[in-house]
Amino acid sequence: MWSAKIIVEYKEGILDPEAKTIQRAFDNLGYNDINKIQTGRYFKLNFENAIKKEEADVNVKEVCDKLLSNPVIENYTYELEEVS
Amino acid sequence: MWSAKIIVEYKEGILDPEAKTIQRAFDNLGYNDINKIQTGRYFKLNFENAIKKEEADVNVKEVCDKLLSNPVIENYTYELEEVS
Repeated sequence: MWSAKIIVEYKEGILDPEAKTIQRAFDNLGYNDINKIQTGRYFKLNFENAIKKEEADVNVKEVCDKLLSNPVIENYTYELEEVS
Repeated sequence: MWSAKIIVEYKEGILDPEAKTIQRAFDNLGYNDINKIQTGRYFKLNFENAIKKEEADVNVKEVCDKLLSNPVIENYTYELEEVS
């Protein structure tokens, strides 16, 4: 069975307010050695057994473009792996 | 420079309403070959140049436990990699 692990991140230059809040919390807690934080979203999709890698790949790209990411402000990366 | 990529996921059995909504959207759009969806959060942290891998590792675990995940309902995994 093919499984896709997808990470959706903000594009370079897009404001990431959650990261700014986390940065402030880290500073308050004394973690001053962390100098850059980026946040994103993660999705894991499992495909039916009968689906081939090529079909899964096409489907992952389509759902990322249409539904899971906003292409104006976000980029996505994914990995397909075979799981049992 | 060490960089950590962190994925925070719901523990097995924890309700994931976002995933249910996505599943419904996939079904409506005709993506019936995706039979399981899980959502999570992603964080990328960059450490100062002077920080060694062991120190980065300890810091990542601490901030994941204290701040980035809720250990009651979430698990986290991370990878440390050296970037330039």
